[in-house]
Amino acid sequence: MKSFKKMTKDELMELKNQLQKEYDEAASKGLSLDMSRGKPSKSQLDLSNGMLDGINSTSDMKSENGSDTRNYGFLDGIPEAKKLMADMMGVSPENVFIGGNASLNLMYTIVSNAMLFGVLGGTPWSKLDHVKFLCPSPGYDRHFAITELFGIEMITIPMTKDGPDMEQVEKYVNHDESVKGIWCVPKYSNPQGITYSDEVVKRFASLHPAAKDFRIFWDNAYVIHDLYEDEKDELLEIFAECRKNGNEDLVYEFCSTSKVTFAGSGISAVAASVVNMKSIKQYMTVQTIGYDKINQLLHTRYFGDINGMLEHMKSHAAILRPKFEAVLNIFERELSDLDIAEWTKPKGGYFISFESLPGCAKEIVAKCKEAGVTLTGAGATYPYKKDPNDSNIRIAPSFPTEEEMKQAAKLFVLCVKLVSVTKLLQEV
Amino acid sequence: MKSFKKMTKDELMELKNQLQKEYDEAASKGLSLDMSRGKPSKSQLDLSNGMLDGINSTSDMKSENGSDTRNYGFLDGIPEAKKLMADMMGVSPENVFIGGNASLNLMYTIVSNAMLFGVLGGTPWSKLDHVKFLCPSPGYDRHFAITELFGIEMITIPMTKDGPDMEQVEKYVNHDESVKGIWCVPKYSNPQGITYSDEVVKRFASLHPAAKDFRIFWDNAYVIHDLYEDEKDELLEIFAECRKNGNEDLVYEFCSTSKVTFAGSGISAVAASVVNMKSIKQYMTVQTIGYDKINQLLHTRYFGDINGMLEHMKSHAAILRPKFEAVLNIFERELSDLDIAEWTKPKGGYFISFESLPGCAKEIVAKCKEAGVTLTGAGATYPYKKDPNDSNIRIAPSFPTEEEMKQAAKLFVLCVKLVSVTKLLQEV
Repeated sequence: MKSFKKMTKDELMELKNQLQKEYDEAASKGLSLDMSRGKPSKSQLDLSNGMLDGINSTSDMKSENGSDTRNYGFLDGIPEAKKLMADMMGVSPENVFIGGNASLNLMYTIVSNAMLFGVLGGTPWSKLDHVKFLCPSPGYDRHFAITELFGIEMITIPMTKDGPDMEQVEKYVNHDESVKGIWCVPKYSNPQGITYSDEVVKRFASLHPAAKDFRIFWDNAYVIHDLYEDEKDELLEIFAECRKNGNEDLVYEFCSTSKVTFAGSGISAVAASVVNMKSIKQYMTVQTIGYDKINQLLHTRYFGDINGMLEHMKSHAAILRPKFEAVLNIFERELSDLDIAEWTKPKGGYFISFESLPGCAKEIVAKCKEAGVTLTGAGATYPYKKDPNDSNIRIAPSFPTEEEMKQAAKLFVLCVKLVSVTKLLQEV
Repeated sequence: MKSFKKMTKDELMELKNQLQKEYDEAASKGLSLDMSRGKPSKSQLDLSNGMLDGINSTSDMKSENGSDTRNYGFLDGIPEAKKLMADMMGVSPENVFIGGNASLNLMYTIVSNAMLFGVLGGTPWSKLDHVKFLCPSPGYDRHFAITELFGIEMITIPMTKDGPDMEQVEKYVNHDESVKGIWCVPKYSNPQGITYSDEVVKRFASLHPAAKDFRIFWDNAYVIHDLYEDEKDELLEIFAECRKNGNEDLVYEFCSTSKVTFAGSGISAVAASVVNMKSIKQYMTVQTIGYDKINQLLHTRYFGDINGMLEHMKSHAAILRPKFEAVLNIFERELSDLDIAEWTKPKGGYFISFESLPGCAKEIVAKCKEAGVTLTGAGATYPYKKDPNDSNIRIAPSFPTEEEMKQAAKLFVLCVKLVSVTKLLQEV
């Protein structure tokens, strides 16, 4: 098919009628497919069922350090869990705190405590007139939901193929004292699947923030979530870079096993400098007696060490890869050369980011919904759910089966074409 | 032995020398015992090991509602867990939210969110000049630590044998708009083991708070933790009482299985009115994707229903009862008629509350420590860790074995006598 943009009005009209017919037919099939969230599929969850055999009523429930994991104690987690999660992030166990089943909760808690108590003796953010966060976008909607809830002003930073636009990041961070944080998903970013380049990481590590209490929220959610063994993205370890500049307090790093073992029952971790970690523990000791250590033990016994975990991730990749490829192949086949869309081709993570013609995303998502395919709400990838171009759509291929994914992708491209042609007709 | 208070100075002197000798001897034995925290013992934890057999790699991991407990979803918990915890508290499942492994974390979160966002549209507490909490004391140190961290002014309310002094509670709550909350452990209170009388519960349920955003934090931590089958304390269900007065929004109720199954890996719950629950979920949906549902499933499969859980509690009682009785028998035998101490004789819960002569508690705890027996720090049971009389000591008999408990109790009474006689000599 030739570029829509080169079509005459008549050609567009005819195409529209044809597409409308195809859409009506598709809509009548009563599809019910969900590509909205980065949920692992049943077969991915099955991969970790063996973990449930790791402990039973006759098991030794003691941690390496001799403590009974069933009882209270060990606020920051058992040593073997700290080691495992430290290795996942490439940091030292003493810089790691093990949380509950959601790293999101650790992020929320750290922002919430900064609001109430300030960061390392600074003014509580809730007492300041202006608090701003930088939000590289498209980005993760649940990050933005946290800062929105706290009334923190969110500033959109454009993403480049190498990560956030660092000129803008530096401009804000180094000159505006009200900028207190930035949300980052540095590897296989949500939703674009972009991994920050070495230069971007180095520039993050050498920021000179105007605000002493500025922090980078480095959500390394997809740190070991590669799709291809021979084509992995490599992310520089940020604390090592920060150390070179004496800048270690700049970063809180997060990760979890939500997309390694069980999405609802993983373990999470935050890594931080010695100084930041002391402060984290000081508040944690009031808000909990410690997180679930039996689940920590389950994880460490199952994987043994980071190598066991990395091996396990290959099985996830084997399930996810064909789904990503099915979607990308359909996009390639159906949308190339039409000049109505662009999309990312990630080498890991959970999402594909799709860019429609400006002003079309909401309508595409609505059309899909009408025909039985649920997508993440258009705009969700931007602060305040407002995509300035109304063009970004997050595709989450993990949950449906490969077959369902193909059906969903076909309907999706049909909707993209129909909405685009309608839009172009308005502009002719 | 006769009352210390009736002894002459010479008698006291002689007694002191004798006790000092006994103490020196005891101290030389190198004891190392811990009666400081309400930790279950190994044999109590063993009672729940069977729970770990409830799920393995071949198990059906679906909840009653058909959802896969391994995946994301169901913010407020799986229906069978909501039912189980609702039955524990005597409320309806729709009023229940299931949290992580610590009800303390739910309490912290609710106070924290009230500080930041206010309660049901009220002014955020952090924006008010004065926020006060009532603290029936002696009480639970971890409650007081939360309010202290938030800079909330804590007002000590004396405990009576029927619960908090309700005249004072009513005086403050009904007339002082800055009083926003009260910490309660209504059944087998920590540390006295007092269960609030029906009249006290009814008076709580008919409070007319000056502050619309006043809330009762009803920490029903020991709701099913009876020591004696035939002599259980009964606590009125507070929501039912509140309903009679259209006062259901007054209360947040908390409970957990920390002292039912595994202290570090239980499930927690908060119960609240429809209106409060809506607000709780509104914030929870930003701070987590939902708590660990596999652990919820483990619990519900193991117990079946509340009756299974109640049956299980009898085994806990069988282990705890002899320890409580060992301590109480030693107190009775060694301290009765001496006019230097009083103590509670709880029918459930985890603690015995001990009252020494005024000005002696710190010294008794220090003497015990010196001789190898760790107690909860004196003062910990009062706001700001300041016991105005320096007389209350919390005894936690659960963790040591019965034999260790006897040793510890003997050393404890020896220290009580020695410190008391020293005190009395100063006053002669």
